[in-house]
Amino acid sequence: MNERMIARTVGLILRIEAALLLLPAAVGALYGEHETLYFVLTAALALAASLLLTIKKPHTSVIYAREGFLIVALSWIALSVFGALPFYLSGQIPGFVNCLFETVSGFTTTGSSILTDVEALSRGMLFWRSFTHWVGGMGVLVFALALLPMAEGRPMHILRAEAPGPSVGKLVPKMRQTAAILYSVYLALTVLEIIFLAAGGMGLYDSVVHAFGTAGTGGFSIRNASIGAYQSPYFEWVIGIFMLLFGVNFNLFYLILLGRIKSALKSQELRWYLAIVAVATAAITLNVLSLFENAGQALRTAFFQVSSIITTTGFVTTNYDLWPSFSKMILVLLTVIGACAGSTGGGIKVSRFVILVKSVTQEIRAMIHPRVVKNIKFEGRSVDKATADSVSVFFTTYLFVLLGSMLIVSLNGFDMTTTSTSVLTCLGNVGPGLGEVGPVGNFSAFSPLSKLVFCFDMLAGRLEIFPMLILFTPGVWKRK
Amino acid sequence: MNERMIARTVGLILRIEAALLLLPAAVGALYGEHETLYFVLTAALALAASLLLTIKKPHTSVIYAREGFLIVALSWIALSVFGALPFYLSGQIPGFVNCLFETVSGFTTTGSSILTDVEALSRGMLFWRSFTHWVGGMGVLVFALALLPMAEGRPMHILRAEAPGPSVGKLVPKMRQTAAILYSVYLALTVLEIIFLAAGGMGLYDSVVHAFGTAGTGGFSIRNASIGAYQSPYFEWVIGIFMLLFGVNFNLFYLILLGRIKSALKSQELRWYLAIVAVATAAITLNVLSLFENAGQALRTAFFQVSSIITTTGFVTTNYDLWPSFSKMILVLLTVIGACAGSTGGGIKVSRFVILVKSVTQEIRAMIHPRVVKNIKFEGRSVDKATADSVSVFFTTYLFVLLGSMLIVSLNGFDMTTTSTSVLTCLGNVGPGLGEVGPVGNFSAFSPLSKLVFCFDMLAGRLEIFPMLILFTPGVWKRK
Repeated sequence: MNERMIARTVGLILRIEAALLLLPAAVGALYGEHETLYFVLTAALALAASLLLTIKKPHTSVIYAREGFLIVALSWIALSVFGALPFYLSGQIPGFVNCLFETVSGFTTTGSSILTDVEALSRGMLFWRSFTHWVGGMGVLVFALALLPMAEGRPMHILRAEAPGPSVGKLVPKMRQTAAILYSVYLALTVLEIIFLAAGGMGLYDSVVHAFGTAGTGGFSIRNASIGAYQSPYFEWVIGIFMLLFGVNFNLFYLILLGRIKSALKSQELRWYLAIVAVATAAITLNVLSLFENAGQALRTAFFQVSSIITTTGFVTTNYDLWPSFSKMILVLLTVIGACAGSTGGGIKVSRFVILVKSVTQEIRAMIHPRVVKNIKFEGRSVDKATADSVSVFFTTYLFVLLGSMLIVSLNGFDMTTTSTSVLTCLGNVGPGLGEVGPVGNFSAFSPLSKLVFCFDMLAGRLEIFPMLILFTPGVWKRK
Repeated sequence: MNERMIARTVGLILRIEAALLLLPAAVGALYGEHETLYFVLTAALALAASLLLTIKKPHTSVIYAREGFLIVALSWIALSVFGALPFYLSGQIPGFVNCLFETVSGFTTTGSSILTDVEALSRGMLFWRSFTHWVGGMGVLVFALALLPMAEGRPMHILRAEAPGPSVGKLVPKMRQTAAILYSVYLALTVLEIIFLAAGGMGLYDSVVHAFGTAGTGGFSIRNASIGAYQSPYFEWVIGIFMLLFGVNFNLFYLILLGRIKSALKSQELRWYLAIVAVATAAITLNVLSLFENAGQALRTAFFQVSSIITTTGFVTTNYDLWPSFSKMILVLLTVIGACAGSTGGGIKVSRFVILVKSVTQEIRAMIHPRVVKNIKFEGRSVDKATADSVSVFFTTYLFVLLGSMLIVSLNGFDMTTTSTSVLTCLGNVGPGLGEVGPVGNFSAFSPLSKLVFCFDMLAGRLEIFPMLILFTPGVWKRK
């Protein structure tokens, strides 16, 4: 166990966070808010902690899978704890557990909130809250890899643990370049959305924070009624389409940049993703038709909500908790499926879903024709047995975490729908659920224990379950 | 494809059903009920269908896995369709879909009911309704194998498809003897329960039908308030303990009969099963303590309900829908887990649950120590990779059927809790759920489409999913 390398990496991450905190400080200063002080103070604290953690040089920079997982889990926890300090120190959010919940929800791009009145927060705080989405969306460690010379230390272990999806493909031979390309695409798309929103008259500040929420597939808004507050079909379409874009595997954007548009469009995951969105949108549109003035409005609202839930963003334009059960059930299923691997979205990912579907049909075929060799094809290649099996085990683990969390959260005594969808939406990094945690509700009424469980679930969902479980595995810290 | 062998076996099953129908006919005659006529009429119809199906001799008695699955699925559907006729022809249950639902629920030992007033049915009909539990519990095809000379035709394919659990071990080298031993244990335990209940003053008729419901882990009662109607702690303990016994792998009873008590008690599945029951009972007892007069009553009620749900019986003594969410969540989890493999219970089975838990912990270990060879131990032996993987795929398939069914059933517009627990309880072969289908509710309000989906789910749950899916797989009927 290379503890010093773990401490060192967590320390470096905190140093990055200290730098990131200067952005909301600048925004706060611009608006003349006195809470700006707390961003600077937190940055100083993060820097101090960083210095303490990096004081001892590692004997070697070599790390193994175990250290990779621990680095990722501990970095995200450290990020969240320090990220919560501005809310806590300024008193803008009462209670440290609440501050932590809100920050974890931010970094993990969940977007669940314990705030009953979002609009009461200062501009700087709201900026920081949404900025955590943007930072967490692509991953902080990916960012670190793009900046820092860690290439000798097997960064693949880290990237693999942090990146969403069953497998990480290097775009280019060098790790740092891959990370840099991903971040450039991310930044460019974000800027593009800001331009579209500002062009529609949203105002620069609002455009920026909502673009952060979209890009990270987070879902924090600065308005209590979320995107619904703007009452604008234009914003609804723009954000609906951008959410969909940020749910696509970023490797495809890179392919498109290289002019290989055809091979990007051939992606099986992309096709399934778009097909699910199309079918879900059509089904919900038909189901809610009578609730809207005309079919166009029903379609627009259905598309926005489908795009928002499958990409695990969680913006809302309507109280879909009032929709018929069928539509709600579709949204719940989308919460589980989630976006594409290699995007900023959560859930189990479309590619895993497709592999699971194929595993099941393959199993049935094998039962009918026992002598046929089992073989699953995905993205034009054979999926080897080990990958298919690890997807099954991932899904099982995901469900165990889900059910275990529901059991603890049920101690709060909320109805079954609230209990189950609150856990589902946190683990899937979506944001809103149904019932008390529906589009017009929030997470304020849960006990601190439940809120900590939600924090665990949000981090587990963002980090693909295992890093968080490994952190709590007895014996993982043994030296041996 | 050996269609004639399929037709022949289904025909033989119908002949057995014709014979079985004479028992409720006799009971009805004993009570002087005119509905008796319909049992005789149905028996005649089943016999006629049987003769038609067996008119053409198969060229060969050899069958393969595919035929095995189809035989099982079609036999159970044929059994259910003819079993529904007495209810339908007599008009005691209105509408054929309702009659089919009730009969499928009977044979699959689910115990869900569309009846709003059970007590309105005649004695003969109620006897038949509960008798289907007893017949379905151990399996009709197992029964046929015990009686009929089919040994040349690879009956293992049939037994494996019908018997609950991940693997079927032959107790003795000969198939027929294995089936005969299992049925003898089953019969003996049922008689023992009848004696216990009658000794407590339940009355012979009531004792017999409730013993049927317990033995098959079915849960149909002849009273609207189920076992709660008797208001007797004695009956509650007797039935609670017998449910638990019928949820045990029957191989263990055989071991005990052979005097190998020690090796029976060493069963890991048994220990997990009892441990889950103990922990769930303790947790619920503490959670509902304030709702009862004293701790003893709380413990008794909690134990009865835990035993009833984990064994997937579904008898009730209290309206647990009024319990706190935590207790309800525990019951929902038990619905998924179910009883031991090789028992008459449903769910995914304790052994599969244990293997899933071990697969997950194994995966985590492998991530921490990538060079360690993956190895899962269960019941003192290594579980080979193929078995562990097929358990994962089974679980995934189970969940896909669950989620797909919920989506269709949600079209009824019931609340999310009713929608999800109605499917859960049918697929797990439990009986009651929460909300509209809770302990004091029933399934009458669902649309015919939903009821047919429930029929599919109940059969899928009883037959371990795959036979029913294979039946609806395109191309399965191709000759090739």
